[in-house]
This record gives sequence, structure tokens and C-alpha cells, in this order.
Amino acid sequence: MSTTPLIVTLGVEDLRRSIRFYESGLGFPRVPYQPETIAFFDLGGAQLALFPRGALAEDAGVPGSGEGFSGVTLARFASSSKEVSAFLERAIQAGARLTRAAEPTSWGGFSGYFADPDGHLWEIACDSKT
Amino acid sequence: MSTTPLIVTLGVEDLRRSIRFYESGLGFPRVPYQPETIAFFDLGGAQLALFPRGALAEDAGVPGSGEGFSGVTLARFASSSKEVSAFLERAIQAGARLTRAAEPTSWGGFSGYFADPDGHLWEIACDSKT
Repeated sequence: MSTTPLIVTLGVEDLRRSIRFYESGLGFPRVPYQPETIAFFDLGGAQLALFPRGALAEDAGVPGSGEGFSGVTLARFASSSKEVSAFLERAIQAGARLTRAAEPTSWGGFSGYFADPDGHLWEIACDSKT
Repeated sequence: MSTTPLIVTLGVEDLRRSIRFYESGLGFPRVPYQPETIAFFDLGGAQLALFPRGALAEDAGVPGSGEGFSGVTLARFASSSKEVSAFLERAIQAGARLTRAAEPTSWGGFSGYFADPDGHLWEIACDSKT
């Protein structure tokens, strides 16, 4: 099982809105899939899936209620601090909410966070401060 | 940025316990990293990171309180239903809680879910019912 790609599924309130955010807004490449009750995106070695939140909880066998910090963040690396800032700006234009403005990190890099339309948190980072 | 590996960070209450669960319990290959205030695991094209929950929320710029369904699940595919069942059993032995017993799925596969020591949900699936 060690070589199969990880799939991260985000439970969302409005599947169409979230597909628009990730596909048109962020430019993530969508994986063709039928039926369109779920959407997959290719993250190069992993896949991001979007699925209605209530149905996801039901599938997992847990109650669907929940609020506040999810305890999960997703991160991707850019090649420069300029690219970090540009991607955060793109996400905001697409409807994301900046939760932490990009700044130098304790580990010597540069990163910021945004929340997607459902509050799922993404860190956009790079290894250097330049 | 499209070719950089996805990093999924799980906020955990007890970093040592979670490292033990994923490294010794599930057998995920750990990536050497210093300092040991965070742990990384190689998931073949993606990385899993474990980080104290409060520090993760602070890093993301959001309040740390939260409860109930996180709205996020992680999934990996096995090669057979037998391997699905064996992995779920291994997870339970390591301290996981089964949230949905393995069963045939609506999309023609076979899968079950467990919750890790912090409640983070994993689906173990395969494409066939055999």
C-alpha cells in the first residue's frame, strides 16, 4: 500500500462553489470522473477530493456536526517568496480568506495561510526568505 | 508549484504518542528531520506531518478550539479487500478506533475507516470487492 497516492478529501457545503474555487480559482488540474457527486484534483503524487460534508461524515461513520479548528492543514511549496505572495493573492481573489499574512518563518522559510470557502486551511510556503 | 509534494499536517495532542502510532503502529516510513518538534512521514508523492495541535492553529492564524467532525478524511488504497481488512486490524492493534467496518462501497470497491488517536479519519480502500 506504500506506493498508492494519498487522497485528501475535504467535506464541503457547496460542491459547485468548491469546484469553482479549486479549478478556476486556484487552477488545480481536475481529474475527469463520473458521476460528478465528487471531484478529484491531481496534486502531483497525491489527489485532492471534494465531497459534500454530510455525506463524507456518513461515509466515515461519524456524526457530521463539528466546528472550529479542524486540526488539519494542507501545505504546498512554491519556489520563491514572490510566488508565495502571488498564490495567496490568487486565492484571495478566488474567495479565500487570508488567515496569516505571508512572513518569514521560524524554520528559515517564508509562508502564509488561507482558508478555503469552507474554512479548510492551506499553507503556501517556500524554503527561502527570498 | 504544481509539482511540489502535498504536505498534510495533523494537529495532535501528544506528539510522541502519534509518532509511535504512525511509525511503529502503522509502519509509515519516517523522514529524518531536526528538531523533533515536528515529524514527517513519506507517503510516496505526499508527506504526512504531525505537529502539536495548538501550535498548528497558531501557525495558521486561527483559534485553536474546535470539536466534532473535522471535515477532512485521508485515504489510501490497498490491492485487495484482504489487505484492507489486515491494515484496519493493524491500525486497531496500534490504538485506532474503527469508525466504519470494511464493507463493499457504492462505487464498486471495498473500504473501511478508522480514527487515529486524535480522531483524524483514514479510509483504507481497494478498487474491487475481492
